[in-house]
Formats: sequence, structure tokens, C-alpha cells
Amino acid sequence: MPPVRHTFDTLAPGDVLDLGSCQVTEAEIIAFASDFDPQPFHIDPAAAERSIFGGIIASGWHTCALTMRLLVDAFLSQAASMGSPGVEQIRWLRPVRPGDTLTARIRVLEKRPSQSKPDRGSIKSLTEVTNQADELVMTMESIVLMGRTAPAI
Amino acid sequence: MPPVRHTFDTLAPGDVLDLGSCQVTEAEIIAFASDFDPQPFHIDPAAAERSIFGGIIASGWHTCALTMRLLVDAFLSQAASMGSPGVEQIRWLRPVRPGDTLTARIRVLEKRPSQSKPDRGSIKSLTEVTNQADELVMTMESIVLMGRTAPAI
Repeated sequence: MPPVRHTFDTLAPGDVLDLGSCQVTEAEIIAFASDFDPQPFHIDPAAAERSIFGGIIASGWHTCALTMRLLVDAFLSQAASMGSPGVEQIRWLRPVRPGDTLTARIRVLEKRPSQSKPDRGSIKSLTEVTNQADELVMTMESIVLMGRTAPAI
Repeated sequence: MPPVRHTFDTLAPGDVLDLGSCQVTEAEIIAFASDFDPQPFHIDPAAAERSIFGGIIASGWHTCALTMRLLVDAFLSQAASMGSPGVEQIRWLRPVRPGDTLTARIRVLEKRPSQSKPDRGSIKSLTEVTNQADELVMTMESIVLMGRTAPAI
């Protein structure tokens, strides 16, 4: 594990972190959706062609999962993360298609020390995901519980 | 494809549909998280044992993906689904552990005809997921665009 660089106390509203990029192939889109979201426009190229999407698009949950991988590699693996109680909002704004390169960044929106547990607090953040044309494909507002550098007094 | 049984016009606020059940194994939890959420408490049994969770737990995104599969098999594959603009809220209320059986149901919260496109409307729903002890492990409020039986007048 890399050393912990981010804690509740090192992060501040307005902070922005680049999370890097990943590419998604048609085979990966079809494999993920065959397991978890087997709608025709995710798994069947011919049916997808005839659909309102005009071709295979990734399951929105696949986009979430790919974004989570970027979040873990670039942020959470170096953070005092204690898991997440949930997500406030996800918007799938544009289709993700085979060959797309997704780039993500996370912005700290607000932080709140725990009232009951002095060793942690919650961080609300906005993650924005763009494609290779710099179009926003997904936004996600989520919450993570984060350990503190030192217990609150 | 099964025949379309659910459209914007056949669904009404208060409707509840049972989505069935699925089981999740440790191997599946580790495989999903190795791809998409490689935090120690999802992929490393020894580290998970020492963590605040006391053992391997499923990535919240894995729980979402498993729930989506239930939603597709029991509902969306028989619905005039036109995709989803997003999710309003997800709450991961309890850990999902190896061997757990997840059972889901969806409740229609509200529906709204499209202002600009008479052939569709949006349905807001609440999906609740419980484990074999009937404890709620996840709730998800989401939106789906749905075709109408007939164009609005």
C-alpha cells in the first residue's frame, strides 16, 4: 500500500485532484453488461445499431466502476478511507462508447467532522468524468468517511 | 427478448415489483473489486480481517451491479426502457459479505410525462435490497426513461 497522503484534515473544500484516464473497449463493455446489465444496447451490436443510441454504449454502472478504479488508484489508495455511506447523485450525461478514453477529476465540496466519533469525518465530493472530446459524460456526488490525522480535541 | 409488459402508462406510483434474489461468493467479490475497487477490505482476506469491517465485504459498486442485474432480468427486459439519466441517491447501509443472498424490490415513487417528447416519460423509483437476515443493505433512488403505450394527445 502507498503511504497515506490524504486524511480528513489535509483535504479542504475547493481542492481538486486529477484522477488520470482509462480506455474502455467494446469487449469490456459487452463483458461487464453481460454480467450485470444485459440490455440489448449494451451487449448486442446489431440491436444497439437499431436502438436510439445508434451503437453499443457502456452500462452506466460500468462507467461508475471504471471511475471508481481511477478514484482508488489516484486517491483512495493513498487516503485514510473508511468506506462510503453512499452517493448523493449520479448523472449519465452522454453515452460512453467503445474506444472512449475517460478522464476524471474529483473536487472536495464540503467536509464535516463526525459528531459521535472523533477519529473521523465525512467528505462530500463531486467527481467529473470527460471523454476524449472533453465532453462531460458523468458526474457523481459522493460521500466518503475519512480518518483524521489526529483525534479531535 | 420477452414481450414488453411495462410502459410509462402501465406503471403507477405505489406499484411494487419483486425482483428476485442472487447470491454472491467471495471469489466474485474479489474478482469485481480487483478490476474496479481494489481497496484491501474488498480484495485481501487477511487485511480485511484486520480492518473495521472484520472480513471481506463487497464493493458498493458490486452491490449496485448485482442489483442492476436483478432489475434487468425481472423488470427492464420486459419494459419499454429508454435508458437512465441517473441516480438520485444510493445508501450502502450494511456490508455485503461472501455467501450473502440479496433480494430486491422496486417501488414506483413518481412519474412525469416528457414535456418535449410525447412518446416517453420519466419514472422515479426506489429499489430496496435486503440480505438473507432481511436486513436492508442498500437503497437506491433512480430514474428511468420509459416509452408510452401510445403517444400523448
